[in-house]
Amino acid sequence: MQGQTIKLKNRPKIIGSYSIVGPKEGAGNFGDYFDYVMKNDFFGEDTFEKAERKMLESAITGVIQDAKLQTKDIDFMMAGDLLNQIISSSYAARAFQFPFLGLYGACSTMAESLALAALLVDEGYCKNIVCSTGSHFSTAERQYRFPLELGNQRPPTSQWTVTGAGASVVSLNGEGPSITMVTFGKVVDWGVNDVNNMGAAMAPAARDTMLAHFKSTKTKPDDYDLIVTGDLGKLGSEILIDLMEDEGYKLGTNYGDCGQMYFRREQKTLCGASGAGCCATVFNSYIMKKLREKQYKKVLFMPTGALLSTTSTQQGDTIPCVCHAIVLES
Amino acid sequence: MQGQTIKLKNRPKIIGSYSIVGPKEGAGNFGDYFDYVMKNDFFGEDTFEKAERKMLESAITGVIQDAKLQTKDIDFMMAGDLLNQIISSSYAARAFQFPFLGLYGACSTMAESLALAALLVDEGYCKNIVCSTGSHFSTAERQYRFPLELGNQRPPTSQWTVTGAGASVVSLNGEGPSITMVTFGKVVDWGVNDVNNMGAAMAPAARDTMLAHFKSTKTKPDDYDLIVTGDLGKLGSEILIDLMEDEGYKLGTNYGDCGQMYFRREQKTLCGASGAGCCATVFNSYIMKKLREKQYKKVLFMPTGALLSTTSTQQGDTIPCVCHAIVLES
Repeated sequence: MQGQTIKLKNRPKIIGSYSIVGPKEGAGNFGDYFDYVMKNDFFGEDTFEKAERKMLESAITGVIQDAKLQTKDIDFMMAGDLLNQIISSSYAARAFQFPFLGLYGACSTMAESLALAALLVDEGYCKNIVCSTGSHFSTAERQYRFPLELGNQRPPTSQWTVTGAGASVVSLNGEGPSITMVTFGKVVDWGVNDVNNMGAAMAPAARDTMLAHFKSTKTKPDDYDLIVTGDLGKLGSEILIDLMEDEGYKLGTNYGDCGQMYFRREQKTLCGASGAGCCATVFNSYIMKKLREKQYKKVLFMPTGALLSTTSTQQGDTIPCVCHAIVLES
Repeated sequence: MQGQTIKLKNRPKIIGSYSIVGPKEGAGNFGDYFDYVMKNDFFGEDTFEKAERKMLESAITGVIQDAKLQTKDIDFMMAGDLLNQIISSSYAARAFQFPFLGLYGACSTMAESLALAALLVDEGYCKNIVCSTGSHFSTAERQYRFPLELGNQRPPTSQWTVTGAGASVVSLNGEGPSITMVTFGKVVDWGVNDVNNMGAAMAPAARDTMLAHFKSTKTKPDDYDLIVTGDLGKLGSEILIDLMEDEGYKLGTNYGDCGQMYFRREQKTLCGASGAGCCATVFNSYIMKKLREKQYKKVLFMPTGALLSTTSTQQGDTIPCVCHAIVLES
């Protein structure tokens, strides 16, 4: 461990990836890359929460097939989501009967699970770990903000929670891009308390982890073909660019944010996409494809998470945020 | 990995432990063993949620001292709690500025964090990891069940959420009992949907992990000086004894349940104690003391967690449960 960064000795690989999204997401910029686009947000269920769970189950089934494995080959599953008590993940784990390790990192969960899985397979203690997360616009909106029926007007800084789930299989054997380094982030809170401005709240956490990563690995932005944050959105990613420039790091055209890039302009999502499913679906479709095709040789993947709850907001607290980073090499 | 069990090569140690509880808990059966008993449940804060967070912060400060370390020696912190979006843990992490890995395993979190920490330090990737969890009667009651002001009558199967927090430091260096094996559990749900009967809901998960552990390690109950479940309570632990007897395993006087043993009869807690703080405070006081004094040589510690949320309950779902096990040797 050097600073906050751990270099993996045996280069664990991501041998499978899968993404499933809702129709609005399927019509966005990454539409051609997703494995499955649902016809509607209910996915044949009677509540949005059950649809979210079913998306996770589909992603897990899909990723095991993509990795050319069977369910019995999976040692365990690491997952989390945005719903209270991560019920989508717990119920998905019930369906598969893998040993289950529940995580909570909000929208940073994809990196938290991949990083932990990489460390666990690297020492040979287990062979194949499924990592998964997702989110659903309608479940997140009504849990964190307002009842959907209110039809509240959305402020200009708001982001649109992605309806989608992504899953990866991490293993020492098989083919795929390697996870070569992981940087676990600290909880950073610069005092933003607006639940409709997650980008501004999370940008300082991305800055903190990015600085820790560059310093401990003695790398700079140009050393990566792609540096991609999770869901800072338009405003948050601009703030991050400014914050990094203040520290002497210039983020150029090789930097992007999944939230900022996710939807088309005419889809009216204001500051862009968010949610645990945002970077999980982009990572497990577009980014994995480009890594597998070796168009990207080295990627720094940095999902951010806003760790707030309605309880802490109601009690006047500001929004604590976290960002975990992993380095992928093809 | 043998079945669901991983044997650790380098015997990582628990080099520090700390427990803090509320006054009712301090008057219970383990009262003499806790490090700190609060004068009241507010702990100088204006909300119970902030008191819960402050307990976690105190436990973390306390455990670092007990391990004779300084904050700068801690590589990262693994924690979770029962509140939505594990806010108590996230805010505690903000106070310390350790890299933070959020977990959610409900009342099984103490074992989930210790098991993961043991695996991570075992391969030498990091040196010292703080593991922590806790719960608060008043925050859990009003989040999961009813407003406190209602003064609802409690059904006979109900348990009393412990107000308390526990923390451990896991390391390869230093003195303390070793974590020699970990068994990660599956999500088990036998259809109980009564949020006032957690013991019955969780007993099948304890059975599943206990069977997996005994089978994969070729051990039997007599091989342990103490087998201790987390918070099955009086009813749940009796159910577990019956379920294990059906499978040919006799749990004798070396078996106990933290929830069942926690309070005195006259404290009127019906089926006993529960909550993530229940086994966390017993483990980090009584059990650790007996291991350090070598009165116990081999302990099987098996906290259980009920992974429900009010949302899933309101949507008619049953309660998914999990149990993770670790083996400690002095």
